[in-house]
Amino acid sequence: MPSRSIRVAVLGARGLVGQWFLKMLHGHPWFKLTAVTSHEAVGLRYRDAVKWLAGGDVPFDFGEMEFIEADPKKVDADVVFSALPTEAARKLELMFAEAGFTVVSKSAAYRLDENVPLVVPEINPDHLALIDVQRTKMSGAIVTDPNCTTTILALPLKPIHDAYGIRKVVVTTLQAASGAGYPGVASLDLIDNVVPYIQGEEEKVRDELLKIMGKLSGGRVEWAGMEVASTCTRVPVLDGHLESVYVETEREVDENEVVELLQEFKGKPQTLKLPTAPEKPIIVLSGVDRPQPRLDRLSGSVPGMSVTVGRVRRGVNKRSVMFLALGHNLVRGAAGSAILLAELLAAEKYI
Amino acid sequence: MPSRSIRVAVLGARGLVGQWFLKMLHGHPWFKLTAVTSHEAVGLRYRDAVKWLAGGDVPFDFGEMEFIEADPKKVDADVVFSALPTEAARKLELMFAEAGFTVVSKSAAYRLDENVPLVVPEINPDHLALIDVQRTKMSGAIVTDPNCTTTILALPLKPIHDAYGIRKVVVTTLQAASGAGYPGVASLDLIDNVVPYIQGEEEKVRDELLKIMGKLSGGRVEWAGMEVASTCTRVPVLDGHLESVYVETEREVDENEVVELLQEFKGKPQTLKLPTAPEKPIIVLSGVDRPQPRLDRLSGSVPGMSVTVGRVRRGVNKRSVMFLALGHNLVRGAAGSAILLAELLAAEKYI
Amino acid sequence: MPSRSIRVAVLGARGLVGQWFLKMLHGHPWFKLTAVTSHEAVGLRYRDAVKWLAGGDVPFDFGEMEFIEADPKKVDADVVFSALPTEAARKLELMFAEAGFTVVSKSAAYRLDENVPLVVPEINPDHLALIDVQRTKMSGAIVTDPNCTTTILALPLKPIHDAYGIRKVVVTTLQAASGAGYPGVASLDLIDNVVPYIQGEEEKVRDELLKIMGKLSGGRVEWAGMEVASTCTRVPVLDGHLESVYVETEREVDENEVVELLQEFKGKPQTLKLPTAPEKPIIVLSGVDRPQPRLDRLSGSVPGMSVTVGRVRRGVNKRSVMFLALGHNLVRGAAGSAILLAELLAAEKYI
Amino acid sequence: MPSRSIRVAVLGARGLVGQWFLKMLHGHPWFKLTAVTSHEAVGLRYRDAVKWLAGGDVPFDFGEMEFIEADPKKVDADVVFSALPTEAARKLELMFAEAGFTVVSKSAAYRLDENVPLVVPEINPDHLALIDVQRTKMSGAIVTDPNCTTTILALPLKPIHDAYGIRKVVVTTLQAASGAGYPGVASLDLIDNVVPYIQGEEEKVRDELLKIMGKLSGGRVEWAGMEVASTCTRVPVLDGHLESVYVETEREVDENEVVELLQEFKGKPQTLKLPTAPEKPIIVLSGVDRPQPRLDRLSGSVPGMSVTVGRVRRGVNKRSVMFLALGHNLVRGAAGSAILLAELLAAEKYI
Repeated sequence: MPSRSIRVAVLGARGLVGQWFLKMLHGHPWFKLTAVTSHEAVGLRYRDAVKWLAGGDVPFDFGEMEFIEADPKKVDADVVFSALPTEAARKLELMFAEAGFTVVSKSAAYRLDENVPLVVPEINPDHLALIDVQRTKMSGAIVTDPNCTTTILALPLKPIHDAYGIRKVVVTTLQAASGAGYPGVASLDLIDNVVPYIQGEEEKVRDELLKIMGKLSGGRVEWAGMEVASTCTRVPVLDGHLESVYVETEREVDENEVVELLQEFKGKPQTLKLPTAPEKPIIVLSGVDRPQPRLDRLSGSVPGMSVTVGRVRRGVNKRSVMFLALGHNLVRGAAGSAILLAELLAAEKYI
Repeated sequence: MPSRSIRVAVLGARGLVGQWFLKMLHGHPWFKLTAVTSHEAVGLRYRDAVKWLAGGDVPFDFGEMEFIEADPKKVDADVVFSALPTEAARKLELMFAEAGFTVVSKSAAYRLDENVPLVVPEINPDHLALIDVQRTKMSGAIVTDPNCTTTILALPLKPIHDAYGIRKVVVTTLQAASGAGYPGVASLDLIDNVVPYIQGEEEKVRDELLKIMGKLSGGRVEWAGMEVASTCTRVPVLDGHLESVYVETEREVDENEVVELLQEFKGKPQTLKLPTAPEKPIIVLSGVDRPQPRLDRLSGSVPGMSVTVGRVRRGVNKRSVMFLALGHNLVRGAAGSAILLAELLAAEKYI
Repeated sequence: MPSRSIRVAVLGARGLVGQWFLKMLHGHPWFKLTAVTSHEAVGLRYRDAVKWLAGGDVPFDFGEMEFIEADPKKVDADVVFSALPTEAARKLELMFAEAGFTVVSKSAAYRLDENVPLVVPEINPDHLALIDVQRTKMSGAIVTDPNCTTTILALPLKPIHDAYGIRKVVVTTLQAASGAGYPGVASLDLIDNVVPYIQGEEEKVRDELLKIMGKLSGGRVEWAGMEVASTCTRVPVLDGHLESVYVETEREVDENEVVELLQEFKGKPQTLKLPTAPEKPIIVLSGVDRPQPRLDRLSGSVPGMSVTVGRVRRGVNKRSVMFLALGHNLVRGAAGSAILLAELLAAEKYI
Repeated sequence: MPSRSIRVAVLGARGLVGQWFLKMLHGHPWFKLTAVTSHEAVGLRYRDAVKWLAGGDVPFDFGEMEFIEADPKKVDADVVFSALPTEAARKLELMFAEAGFTVVSKSAAYRLDENVPLVVPEINPDHLALIDVQRTKMSGAIVTDPNCTTTILALPLKPIHDAYGIRKVVVTTLQAASGAGYPGVASLDLIDNVVPYIQGEEEKVRDELLKIMGKLSGGRVEWAGMEVASTCTRVPVLDGHLESVYVETEREVDENEVVELLQEFKGKPQTLKLPTAPEKPIIVLSGVDRPQPRLDRLSGSVPGMSVTVGRVRRGVNKRSVMFLALGHNLVRGAAGSAILLAELLAAEKYI
């Protein structure tokens, strides 16, 4: 636990991811929200400028905050969470980092930059060492979080990779509408329909997965060598990305052992008992027809922070295994993971 | 064209598949519907006993027909189409075949029986030769049609297999609610949700695919040797099964060539110009976000009889290719394919 | 039937209403499409610039047409159908009328203008006489069609009003997503949800209904005196507005007689056998749970041009009656009604 | 607060209403669950025999309970909550009441019986005096709760009736799928569709509303004299019934005053600070497009126990007012109201 409360700001706080940042920062034991920014809403009260879709009501005190411009001179914070669109992120995140802020970003702008750590706290916390590389050039730092689909996929793959060595991953995703923000996907595209394409998503899944699973050595990350093939679809579901995963491994795999590995999997956030860390990052469901988005998306001791896995079963031979994984795209896939990452940074004295 | 009209009956004509049989038999140039059966509705008028969900109105004259019992003595027909549930099918289809009828079945009861042809008319019409084996034991015959998911998958796989040799198939399906019949899936299971399990479906996909793709030799079918891994899910879509397919091949595969092969693919029904044969069994769509169930499920010169394919692209290496396929589960996946099969039987003088 | 084919153009042809104009004009016996306009798509082929959502494929030849600017000098037509947004309509429709064109408009711009006829062809064809008033000021004319919700409501009210005198109407609508165009309503607003508000709609329903039901006398329309209270909601349905209607009448009303009146109702389009006139403008369904949007929206001998009515029943006393009405918002509620109106204009020698 | 904890049982505890009873009884300060019954599941553990759809997980300890038969001799409780189907309720509820139990019923079996109080705790708590009439004949009592649609309607009507005298109510409901239980409504009926009919519902709305709003005098309830016309529809929403309400009053009505009356409305449960009483039974929302089922169904200090109201506006003249009301059909409309009623019975010493 940090010795004093840490001031945080949320850039791009009007959108869905921004809303979930506020929802999850409300009552946070370490972090104190000091600023919210939105280019289009400067000067407006949060409550008045937002179409709140994160469930329940706008946290009362946050609702009274006034949007300011995303300007390092105007933001008084130690950490800025970025929920900016990629284009704006590319410019502003660097500006904030150069001004000495620690930027924890949900945008894709710098994820694949070789000096920028792309981290799922339970998987590759050691990659945070890249911050030291960044600090040779600027006083702040940029730390990133994978896109929602990748985070949800990477968590169950991690213990499998450690145990058996993953050679190949074939994944088809059934992603929720909220992944596209608001207004996002038109009703006319999702009533009685599925859209089997999400721009740029499949490339992100592959590249980000390989980087997260990569090894840090000599100040750089060597991407993992596994083969990844993904198909991303959009289905008429509000929240919760479901992923149908097929894996081939180096060594022979045992399904019962996989179930056990998944259930017992823990990472640094669990060891450090970080506030937003769920007791179990992965929950294996026994129901034959689970996980289901509506029923399981808010699973875990910190609701929405656990990935649920079901139907773990043998693939085509002894070196393949299949399962379904589900995660809340706006919690574990976005705001929650970023907050957990900031907690890890604080616990590890990067902030 | 047969020299006289062929009398056909539909067993289990009240359900969704039964309804599509009637819809597609209406105005059929070769077949004349003489009887409809339903155990629960004997004596009732078709129109009064059916919750019609096949679009438009009940074909007028068929609506006036009276349900009779599925009894070979009461049915006056050359061919019986069976849309019976498996249990009833096991008993009744054999009874009809023994009584001399040609049974064209949509049920799973005898699909994997070694003397029973399991045929997609464009793929393995030669398997109909198994009828001769059956005829050594009885005067009629049972001919079967794969389950909807398999038919839709098998069609685009056929030309790929012929050209490159398929080693492995990994498929995740997004299946429509109507695949479960009426009432079928509860609204509470599909509003804001997806159910990642369909009982028995994944086993059917593998076994039936291997049998269809198998080689007939010496009066029996040797199943194909490819590896098949499938995950079947139910999505909030009315009609149209979407399938996300990953394929590994023996020989190096070229995506552009695959597109061409799919587009040019034709089978015996096209050569014979059977009434229910679409000009193109497979239509390749160029839109980056196609096929989509609502927009594409009724594709083809005979609406719903073509499978649409989109996003043909390289998989993880030179020996893998990926695509999405979509078919109407009640037309190409059920009644339409069975009627096409009966047309083939007629054209080939099996009836 | 006109002695020569009539050249027509569609202004704002890219949107959903525009698409249905093209769909319904294809193969039209009297009208020949000569131009399509879209401010944003000038120079592009129709097929390439449109996200086609009107079912089936873009009519082939229309797909090849090139969008031009909505400029009276560039459009070669007798009639222009306007599917323009209100603001653009206000300017362009007048410009076309002044240039001598007959404008048949689906926009709200001039509907309530006292010299502009607001006509449902089966209800108030006599209001077209207002064209003569317009012609004293310009060579062309503007003729309008009510908004979709009003048209669907007005049709069943007409024979009831004629027979019993309507004093009061209380209506709650359940409107389809396509009524808001594309992209229109966000998926996040309609998954597991209903939105009980549609901007401006309730005022339109009241005002337009009163004008349509009004009496033409002395070159102006005296609005009907009935009281109208409406609540408009948006539901997760693609096409088809359902309306729950409660009516109070001057004279005692008999439900069976109402059913008969509705079923027998015919207007001038039926007498004249106009090409887009359905045999029955109103179809009364006997099913206790009808009309339903998905099952009934394409009813009628010209699909989608008939309003279906169900559950005709007594209200709170002998002077009130209730029913549900359903119509296809893009056919009877938009393109179809406008085309029918143009046919009437042609038949009545206004063109 | 009662001096000792009150033992309660839930009859028909497997269904959706039963599940919400368990969810809301968990951790209840006064009530201790001692038995759950289900004819089909006797002997099974709750957890194993239930498809849990009430959100989150089955409350742990309740999940371990074993279903018993609904037999007064086997149930050890002071109060039994009945979520039985009507037929079973007719027999069993009387049997329990005769055996001395206080039955609080969600079934329709005895709601309109003249000696049985039909009570919404905030509206007509005085009707509980009918219990004394019952007690002349048996040692226990039956107390009932209106159906969900009526409760949600009656709450906002109550202060309006008190202030202005209601003459007429015209209501159209948009009801959630969960109102029909599980499996309830088929997906094929609610994908891209609305069903404008719910068997028996409209009669219940009228009769139950009139009884609740009636006056108790001389040991019987004189039903209110207002006219009620209702149309009940089913929409693709999980939980939350939305009602579009038009009201005519005796005296002139002022919309702003109505808003104030609704906001300030409180009943005995609020005065007595009963555990399940929300601070505000009615919450008026200011958003122009509210209430919406998904956003507002869990409103209130006890989530789901407040009815939200929006769009309060003038009807057709000075003596009419319109609004939309929304309530959670399984909380305020079912289990929550029944528990609140039992709390009232306890506080008023009926138990």
